[in-house]
Amino acid sequence: MEFLSKYQTALQERLVDTVLVKEPKQLYEPIQYIVSLGGKRLRPILTLMTCDFFEVDFHKAMNAALAVELFHNFSLIHDDIMDRAPMRRGEETVHEKWDLNTGILSGDAMLILAYQLFESYEPTMFQELAKLFSKTALEVCEGQQYDVDFETRDDVSLSEYIHMIDCKTAVLLGAAMKMGAIVAEASESCSNHLYDFGRNLGIAFQLQDDYLDVFGNSESFGKQIGGDIISNKKTFMYLTAIEKSSASEAETLQHLFSISPKDPSDKIETVTRILVASGAAEATQNEIERYTQKAFKCLDRVAISSEKKDSLRLFGDWLMQRTV
Amino acid sequence: MEFLSKYQTALQERLVDTVLVKEPKQLYEPIQYIVSLGGKRLRPILTLMTCDFFEVDFHKAMNAALAVELFHNFSLIHDDIMDRAPMRRGEETVHEKWDLNTGILSGDAMLILAYQLFESYEPTMFQELAKLFSKTALEVCEGQQYDVDFETRDDVSLSEYIHMIDCKTAVLLGAAMKMGAIVAEASESCSNHLYDFGRNLGIAFQLQDDYLDVFGNSESFGKQIGGDIISNKKTFMYLTAIEKSSASEAETLQHLFSISPKDPSDKIETVTRILVASGAAEATQNEIERYTQKAFKCLDRVAISSEKKDSLRLFGDWLMQRTV
Repeated sequence: MEFLSKYQTALQERLVDTVLVKEPKQLYEPIQYIVSLGGKRLRPILTLMTCDFFEVDFHKAMNAALAVELFHNFSLIHDDIMDRAPMRRGEETVHEKWDLNTGILSGDAMLILAYQLFESYEPTMFQELAKLFSKTALEVCEGQQYDVDFETRDDVSLSEYIHMIDCKTAVLLGAAMKMGAIVAEASESCSNHLYDFGRNLGIAFQLQDDYLDVFGNSESFGKQIGGDIISNKKTFMYLTAIEKSSASEAETLQHLFSISPKDPSDKIETVTRILVASGAAEATQNEIERYTQKAFKCLDRVAISSEKKDSLRLFGDWLMQRTV
Repeated sequence: MEFLSKYQTALQERLVDTVLVKEPKQLYEPIQYIVSLGGKRLRPILTLMTCDFFEVDFHKAMNAALAVELFHNFSLIHDDIMDRAPMRRGEETVHEKWDLNTGILSGDAMLILAYQLFESYEPTMFQELAKLFSKTALEVCEGQQYDVDFETRDDVSLSEYIHMIDCKTAVLLGAAMKMGAIVAEASESCSNHLYDFGRNLGIAFQLQDDYLDVFGNSESFGKQIGGDIISNKKTFMYLTAIEKSSASEAETLQHLFSISPKDPSDKIETVTRILVASGAAEATQNEIERYTQKAFKCLDRVAISSEKKDSLRLFGDWLMQRTV
């Protein structure tokens, strides 16, 4: 995306300065490491872009954007511990490369560093940003807890699942945009519509992620296809299939999601077949489209030029991998 | 301490409301649990008391005091994981009663809840409190990291050790008092002298804790005597003994601090003997006295009535267990 590169460049530069290694090295090195693993920098770009759209120098939103990115990376460190994940973006996770204690403590420090980044704003803006940040951060913790809880529950409803991904993923996208609007001193109603845009797009994005895990192209998706099936992750698509399929097929699905065969290829094939036959795959696609359209509708109410709204739609399309 | 009871009562009441269990329960129950284990509530009392001393209704400092207490309890949950501690105040630690993931996530949520408590203050005060809080919280993380690092180093200097306990323990006592002064809108110089009072007293308090671990009365100390010797913790007293004793005694000490005998009574006896014979025990007592006097000197410069300074001295004495 051509128009994103100015944000990416500015961000990369400041990110390097923000995570310089100080003493004690063992605390700060993992912070530099996780940030250096890269990623799309989706969230901080949203902050900068939103500020820019209100004709305010996007550099003014840089510290808020960095705070969002540090928070996201903090949550990756702690989530990787909880998921016992050995790899992240093709490299060792922090607790693997160092150890459990380092993962916990460096994560804690990173959360605090995120708060410190807001200190450069004047008191009223600082308070508004920090309040939104705390509310969002707590929701992300709640989302992670629901995700953990759902692993051992077999009565999770579709709306509970949507609530979980809303907390765990979507609210941070919404907050990232709203922070850009706050820094630009946009009206409260504009800020809130952008928040809703980011949040609905975030839900669509997470559902898309679940969908692509099964039906994606492993190269452009960047993860192993069928990973959620292998790890018995009860996604929206799985829950829909259980609801929509016959009793015997639902039973097959439930059984397959209780075992972990050494060679998962048969399991992946059967599950994929049921996901399609039950209509769950199509229903998920419809749901993705519904949340995407819901997001775009929020845009209509934001007082920025239609040209800028088009950029945001383009960004939404890019995010949803409809354009590359 | 008679004059502390009004703070303790008010604090207890509000603490209960602050940690109410919401959904998801698994996230919030451990927070209520760790807080319910009690403790002296030393830090929040310091915040309330300091505010009170400037003739400002101490209830105004309640949310800042609660933030300090939540932060302290957050650090206990995560430290207990890192120390693999099964017990805390006679009860199971959070990661033992629940599990590792719960300990990490509930701790994270608790840190965020602490920040949220400052939101009740107007923007300028909010910013001042949150800045001090972040700076202090990061120092506590650094102190914990130094503590972990020191476990595997055998060249820790006395000044490095003091720096570690300053970060890990003392700065939070200083910050707790300074927050009370900030809420009371005391002058910057007064706030800073109180910060230094708390910080020096904090160092004395931690050195005292190390001393009492060996020479205390198990009943009034509330922990197992010799615990630090059993776990080979290189305290100020140990480091001083290594410096002050003969080469052969230093070697004996170093050897004893590399083993973990099933019955530690001989080890405790020998170590205790060397700590006394080398003069390390006395040197530690002198250092405790030096930091206590340093703390009391900071008080002289604070613009509060001498009657109130006497209360703070009394509090200092109580903390140092010179009066019970």
